[in-house]
Amino acid sequence: MAATQYPQALQHVMSFFSRLPGVGRRSAERLALAMMAWPEQQTEQFGQALLELKNKVRPCAVCGNYAEDELCAICQDPDRQRGVLCVVEQASQIIVLENSGSYKGLYHVLGGKLSPLSGKGPEELRIKELAVRLRQGEISEMIIATSPDVEGEATAHYLAQEFAALPMTITRIASGVPAGADLNFADAATITMALSGRHKL
Amino acid sequence: MAATQYPQALQHVMSFFSRLPGVGRRSAERLALAMMAWPEQQTEQFGQALLELKNKVRPCAVCGNYAEDELCAICQDPDRQRGVLCVVEQASQIIVLENSGSYKGLYHVLGGKLSPLSGKGPEELRIKELAVRLRQGEISEMIIATSPDVEGEATAHYLAQEFAALPMTITRIASGVPAGADLNFADAATITMALSGRHKL
Repeated sequence: MAATQYPQALQHVMSFFSRLPGVGRRSAERLALAMMAWPEQQTEQFGQALLELKNKVRPCAVCGNYAEDELCAICQDPDRQRGVLCVVEQASQIIVLENSGSYKGLYHVLGGKLSPLSGKGPEELRIKELAVRLRQGEISEMIIATSPDVEGEATAHYLAQEFAALPMTITRIASGVPAGADLNFADAATITMALSGRHKL
Repeated sequence: MAATQYPQALQHVMSFFSRLPGVGRRSAERLALAMMAWPEQQTEQFGQALLELKNKVRPCAVCGNYAEDELCAICQDPDRQRGVLCVVEQASQIIVLENSGSYKGLYHVLGGKLSPLSGKGPEELRIKELAVRLRQGEISEMIIATSPDVEGEATAHYLAQEFAALPMTITRIASGVPAGADLNFADAATITMALSGRHKL
């Protein structure tokens, strides 16, 4: 349709933007064009930051969290409770838990959840590494914080069975109506979880 | 609040994303985290593309469009009508006009519109360059395609007065209800423009 196209170098930048989640062709165009109005130095610094990203950030050798050194900031922190381990699917979820300010233990990143349909079995997850950590005997409680969806629940039950023989408590984060939410808009699955998880007042 | 933060290099990338239009702190976080899951090579290529962007793309020496050579693809194209000149605010608007497939002339990018409130006068726009082109005497029609808002209209009237003495036709793009739009949702200013611009059937 278009007789004239954007210059190659600009199209190239657009093509990378459009590979990001939630960024369609039009948004990618808008973002790249906005960048054309940036000071040259700023665009260069952004480019440099991307080049350095994968060199500087890697998975923590112990827990799998984002790390700049061999161990992440949490594994290195002497003030963390070393007897509690919270198992999450992704490193990005650690920040969500940290931001709550209500957890002071360690983490373990699985790198996903069990998903028979997409062929993701226990071998694809960092369960072997989890087993090594748990068998060292320092963990007294493992909190399973996978998502409260079908695959997250399946993963939680798999882990609970797998490590049932170890001398520690295995717990699951609570599911229910979110804090501040209107009950009118809660879906049936959430209500079911909220009811079955009810406790005495 | 957060005891732990993202690694520096990751925060750095987030800070650049958040400077893009429509990208808030949370979106910037989401985009940068998504990039952590990219193959290393792809992130590097994105960074490289940004480094090259400003070197490879510059304003066309004649019209101000995005160009990879001294002249843009349109100014270089021998098949364009050299007697018609369409004046736009931004280079990004040229693509919008090109995509319509209904214009085959040349362009001139003003680099903005007159805006007394933000102190943008005629000297800040590429009007001197426009005058040089028009005085060469090859242009028989100048189509003013600035936006149909207050500043765009003011700019159009300024240009029409400024170049009234030259032997050429000066026209303004039509404003009215957009093609395919529901009249119910057209605002008063658009309706006013559509009525005053009515033509016989």
